[in-house]
Amino acid sequence: MSKAGITPPSKSQADIEEGTVFAPKFAGDGLIPVVVTSAETGEVLMFAYMNEEALARTIETGEAHYWSRSRGGLWRKGEVSGNTQRVVEMRTDCDQDAIWLKVEMTGAEASCHTGRRTCFYRAVPVGSAPGAGLALRFVETERRFDPDEVYGHAGAAKGTLKSSE
Amino acid sequence: MSKAGITPPSKSQADIEEGTVFAPKFAGDGLIPVVVTSAETGEVLMFAYMNEEALARTIETGEAHYWSRSRGGLWRKGEVSGNTQRVVEMRTDCDQDAIWLKVEMTGAEASCHTGRRTCFYRAVPVGSAPGAGLALRFVETERRFDPDEVYGHAGAAKGTLKSSE
Repeated sequence: MSKAGITPPSKSQADIEEGTVFAPKFAGDGLIPVVVTSAETGEVLMFAYMNEEALARTIETGEAHYWSRSRGGLWRKGEVSGNTQRVVEMRTDCDQDAIWLKVEMTGAEASCHTGRRTCFYRAVPVGSAPGAGLALRFVETERRFDPDEVYGHAGAAKGTLKSSE
Repeated sequence: MSKAGITPPSKSQADIEEGTVFAPKFAGDGLIPVVVTSAETGEVLMFAYMNEEALARTIETGEAHYWSRSRGGLWRKGEVSGNTQRVVEMRTDCDQDAIWLKVEMTGAEASCHTGRRTCFYRAVPVGSAPGAGLALRFVETERRFDPDEVYGHAGAAKGTLKSSE
């Protein structure tokens, strides 16, 4: 049994896809991708990764934990900003190498480190031949908190706080 | 300019996060993760990857193309099953290293290679200490097509068709 105690012995493809034993498959870097949506609206709020410990803590506490690739450490969502995520439902996919979290946001109800509700605040134009410099369209502009105030200007400027952290 | 003509010269973090130039960031393996949701219901249908060519073709045609990691090739969703995905909206996230597609499904309206509407058909229990062998709960059981019939038993048995292909 692995350290966080989640991963059972290896399974057949049929067991993985049609069975009822949770056997999350972490990639070579020890991480599993996580899609996070709002349980209320269904919108995609962010995309992140978990290592085995983050997954175990999320399951145990019902509070979203991730692995920060930029900081190289475990990260309880909202530990700095106060904008935590309570897990309403967790799912895994057919081959158990991805996780979907439906969450309820607390605090400012912002999941993005830019202060916005979602990290996916810009649309990409579709339907014509792509060239260099396709123009994005802002779908969401409102900031629910001021990132400089919450994280400190230095942290933001140095890029130590990335993607939703 | 890169071969598919999408990627502009490198940008500052401020440009990437707050600018209007699409500058998708592919990982070291040349792939970018893609979250696919139903434009109709908001549910997460699948999680996949695109290389630059798959992204360019998706933008140009409005039909979802992915990179199949198991087959090592470009993959137009539905090329075998007929269950294609029409892109209703494409978004990118704050640091432009993930894509969100809202799609309309055609054919059997199934996105999973198991024949189900979504790949995320099982829930993981949350709220107590995880141990080896956590029991998954089937949230969706209905198959909208018979994978043996569509892909052929040999393909399915050999595992050459994986995750949503």
